[in-house]
Amino acid sequence: MSRQSRRPRRPRETERSLLAWLAGRRETAGLLGDDAAILPPRRGHVVTVDCQIAGVHFPHDLDPAVLARRLLAVNLSDLAAMGARPVHAFLALAAPSGFPHRRFFRALLSEAARHRLILAGGDLSAAPAVYASLTLIGERWPRARRWLRRSEARPGDALYLGGSVGESALGLELVRRGARLVAGRVALPAALALPAALEAPARRAVRRHLLPRPQLGLGAWLSRRARGAAIDVSDGVARDLHRVCAESVVGAVLEADRLPRSRGFRALAQRLRLDPMRLQLGGGEDYVLLFTLPASLVPPTELGCHRVGRVEAGRRLLLADSAGRTTPLLDLGWDHLSPGA
Amino acid sequence: MSRQSRRPRRPRETERSLLAWLAGRRETAGLLGDDAAILPPRRGHVVTVDCQIAGVHFPHDLDPAVLARRLLAVNLSDLAAMGARPVHAFLALAAPSGFPHRRFFRALLSEAARHRLILAGGDLSAAPAVYASLTLIGERWPRARRWLRRSEARPGDALYLGGSVGESALGLELVRRGARLVAGRVALPAALALPAALEAPARRAVRRHLLPRPQLGLGAWLSRRARGAAIDVSDGVARDLHRVCAESVVGAVLEADRLPRSRGFRALAQRLRLDPMRLQLGGGEDYVLLFTLPASLVPPTELGCHRVGRVEAGRRLLLADSAGRTTPLLDLGWDHLSPGA
Repeated sequence: MSRQSRRPRRPRETERSLLAWLAGRRETAGLLGDDAAILPPRRGHVVTVDCQIAGVHFPHDLDPAVLARRLLAVNLSDLAAMGARPVHAFLALAAPSGFPHRRFFRALLSEAARHRLILAGGDLSAAPAVYASLTLIGERWPRARRWLRRSEARPGDALYLGGSVGESALGLELVRRGARLVAGRVALPAALALPAALEAPARRAVRRHLLPRPQLGLGAWLSRRARGAAIDVSDGVARDLHRVCAESVVGAVLEADRLPRSRGFRALAQRLRLDPMRLQLGGGEDYVLLFTLPASLVPPTELGCHRVGRVEAGRRLLLADSAGRTTPLLDLGWDHLSPGA
Repeated sequence: MSRQSRRPRRPRETERSLLAWLAGRRETAGLLGDDAAILPPRRGHVVTVDCQIAGVHFPHDLDPAVLARRLLAVNLSDLAAMGARPVHAFLALAAPSGFPHRRFFRALLSEAARHRLILAGGDLSAAPAVYASLTLIGERWPRARRWLRRSEARPGDALYLGGSVGESALGLELVRRGARLVAGRVALPAALALPAALEAPARRAVRRHLLPRPQLGLGAWLSRRARGAAIDVSDGVARDLHRVCAESVVGAVLEADRLPRSRGFRALAQRLRLDPMRLQLGGGEDYVLLFTLPASLVPPTELGCHRVGRVEAGRRLLLADSAGRTTPLLDLGWDHLSPGA
């Protein structure tokens, strides 16, 4: 290590700089860059891995049953974004002595069964804090025509969101201020002193943050269409749209007023003194799909999607207000190497 | 959680009790029980996951390049035990701010390239301590006839070890007492005050502990034979032999005097006031293969294997001394839920 310290200092490493470097190495064989890797032979399977760490992704006192469901949901969302059907799961779980493993596994297995997902292997360790990493293998849905990729947006495509954004970031803020999900019910700390009208939106936000709903059905529908890019919004709409545009080598216009938000969202954000637009663009952990479709295709109403903009030629990403004025859409959102940077 | 505390207390959960419970659930589809899961369709791939946690599996100040190689080696050993050829890797890496990611990845990728292994995906997080989990996908070696399983030992088989055991546990003890691997060289703390003759064995033991060598070549050879069980010795010969016998529904006699040990092992163990036999039987992290073969088959000399006993009918596991006296072979070794129990 002493040799390292004598080297000139490199600029601070970000997730993007590290991934760009990795993607250029032959040992990654061009497989990085989507929500899951599409594997040879015959590109018949996709594989994704995601982890949840106590004190980083969830509070140390989170009910292990909720943790299990969250871990699974976050990973399933990556398969949804690939248009994949979940098949096999592999778990690495490290937990302190006394951790109620069976409570965790009962929740994991019951949620897995709902998706016909099989827990095929894993690794157990003891550790000072809970760390869980899940690897999922997915295959094609019946009648699927393709995997969804980030690289398939084309100028002229319409840009969609599969649901509301920003609510999860509000929920995270409430959890930071003491909100908890206990025995299926959200408890809000008295110190929040929320007006009665905001309690229901607050409970929804906490639930949305802790128990996201992966959009597997939407992923399946998209996988049966001929074309269009997709990503799951894990690090904020702005950053994830930047990723789609970078992979597709296109630009885009995001219409601020069209960003779907849940009921009570704006009032709750104001009450917590948070900027609603910043929550929506940069909050992250929404786990809805951000996708593009040729203008001739419109998702069926029951999928609950919202058109939020369009794909354009060039490389500019713009945010348009209601009057049509545009400003550059900053690449703000979560960097996994420098949280808060 | 309050509901839990009112329940009658369950007996302390062990890894074995938890795995037995999990293996009986339909959501695991009978896929647990080997070093890796053999996946449909056509059982053409195996998948394994293993993790390395700072402060649990390695010291917090371990060189990230050594950590990368250890993480890979430990996982490759599971593929070796299945008779599988490594193909794709997926990494979940959480590390504190300032972690030298490129140093870690350079070591991982260069070691991966030696095995023609491709890093196909992953997940990066920031966390207070380093946590790395690796998922490997393996396929069949050319001319392989089968996957290796724990369940294929038969009465009359000879029992083999692919190399020495106990040395890694000695290395762990030295690391606990301050030995370090820095820039490729083992530094022994002066406080150990080892006689000069024991310095080389001590350095070998530390290296063996931190950088195990997965026996992929031996796994490939075994996969081309018609029959025989295999496991990699990660939790101690005694415990891992118990696992083979349980899966195969057989008994075994392990001949204590035949357990291979490295040069200097006994003298070093005595110097550290550790029981050599206990280190050999229960030390763990040896990452050599423990396997059985029909008596008509003998591994070629160049594979460096040692015959250490025999498989018998019944369910008794015995340890035989040089005079042929036997005692029950206790199921001692590492329990991942209750380390030190």
